[in-house]
Amino acid sequence: MIVVKVGGSKGINYDLVLQDLAKYHDVVLVHGGSDELNTISAKLGKPPETITSASGYVSRRTDRETLDIFNMVYCGKMNKMIVEKLQRLNVNAIGLSGIDGRLLMGKRKDVIAVENGRRRIIRDDYTGKVEAVNTDLLRLLLQHGYLPVITPPALSFDNEAINVDGDRAAALIASRLHAEILIILSNTPGLLRDEHDESSLVPIVTRESFDQAMSFAKDRMKKKVLGAFEALNAGVTRVVFADARKPMPITNALQGQGTVIQ
Amino acid sequence: MIVVKVGGSKGINYDLVLQDLAKYHDVVLVHGGSDELNTISAKLGKPPETITSASGYVSRRTDRETLDIFNMVYCGKMNKMIVEKLQRLNVNAIGLSGIDGRLLMGKRKDVIAVENGRRRIIRDDYTGKVEAVNTDLLRLLLQHGYLPVITPPALSFDNEAINVDGDRAAALIASRLHAEILIILSNTPGLLRDEHDESSLVPIVTRESFDQAMSFAKDRMKKKVLGAFEALNAGVTRVVFADARKPMPITNALQGQGTVIQ
Repeated sequence: MIVVKVGGSKGINYDLVLQDLAKYHDVVLVHGGSDELNTISAKLGKPPETITSASGYVSRRTDRETLDIFNMVYCGKMNKMIVEKLQRLNVNAIGLSGIDGRLLMGKRKDVIAVENGRRRIIRDDYTGKVEAVNTDLLRLLLQHGYLPVITPPALSFDNEAINVDGDRAAALIASRLHAEILIILSNTPGLLRDEHDESSLVPIVTRESFDQAMSFAKDRMKKKVLGAFEALNAGVTRVVFADARKPMPITNALQGQGTVIQ
Repeated sequence: MIVVKVGGSKGINYDLVLQDLAKYHDVVLVHGGSDELNTISAKLGKPPETITSASGYVSRRTDRETLDIFNMVYCGKMNKMIVEKLQRLNVNAIGLSGIDGRLLMGKRKDVIAVENGRRRIIRDDYTGKVEAVNTDLLRLLLQHGYLPVITPPALSFDNEAINVDGDRAAALIASRLHAEILIILSNTPGLLRDEHDESSLVPIVTRESFDQAMSFAKDRMKKKVLGAFEALNAGVTRVVFADARKPMPITNALQGQGTVIQ
């Protein structure tokens, strides 16, 4: 079993990713859509906003109106674009969000923002963290020859759609399905010592070098490193960060190109 | 087995429809989203256009850009809105488009428009008609306790997403699943003799009164009547057109309120 997460940042080449993906069996794909969400939100007169938490994490401000646009972009445009491309490659893909069949369940967070050093609780924010995966549904679909293509949002335990981090959702899916490998593809060769220098790739991260890796990681890469270690702690053997702008990104990741976390 | 189609026109009360739907087992729901599509398309600077065919049917002009917005509204906003509401009602819904798992397959049409009496072939239009339903997938989900919530687009036999009529898709799903009844809910009490007079409801249509019914039917109602007879011809016992603006629309339709076609 391989779990692949492909990000939603600028520069990702979905054709290259999906052509390579189509060669493998027993695959679950998780995807993002952040860049397209920023574009569509702005066009609809609702430009993206971010929240910085007390611990320094930056996340998307997700009020109910943003969540509607989120659904349009992630579940509508991106998910169906990927499913259609896979069908064209003769892969019988099924697109699902985390709310379909209670696939991804989690707790809605009390979001606390820090603005100019002051903490403020944001009440109408629909954000959370995935804590449970409906593996029965995924196994049912895989057993019948379908390739699940999964996107946020997830469903809260109070049955509200919630924006969740796709990398950490993929990590939980990989661990609950006992995947051998989790491949996280984005618009970078992997974890970089210097985020502005693509030749500064860190080829291997181990438990011993976790703190060092977190110090290199900036912004969203912090969540990727966290997700990777969550997956390792939950039994996934290997996580690879690899480049979704190059040909054969999955085959290359399986051969150890990128940043291998083990 | 009950197949319910709920339209996407102005005035439809999804809460009333879904609260009633949640009382029944062995249900498949098909939905539209045309009014919301018009709104979002206009906001995104791509206002809706229509095509009138030689036989007088009006349909939506669906170029590739429209199809992307179509996916956003139907598969993203509408489908996930419905699935989330059903989850809140403790119904384990799964939202699927016709391209997911090759659920709805059909032929892409050569679209011929009539403008000022002249015929013109429109090459980049992604429109078609559903001809096949993946009933194995629907039965698999139903057997495992999931309620399928289905939306266009369908997938062409050349693996392109195509805009298809939701009423006729619902009719084919009902016949292929050997449903006892197909309920088509919209923002009208049923087929009206005079479309501007809601008291002019036609309570019953039979094979003998088909031509008369088609003469009453205007615009989209023509496709509903056609779809209803396609379903009857393919073995569905009864089709009911009913009002999605009133409480308990499904229970009322099962009791014969609306226009019963048999």
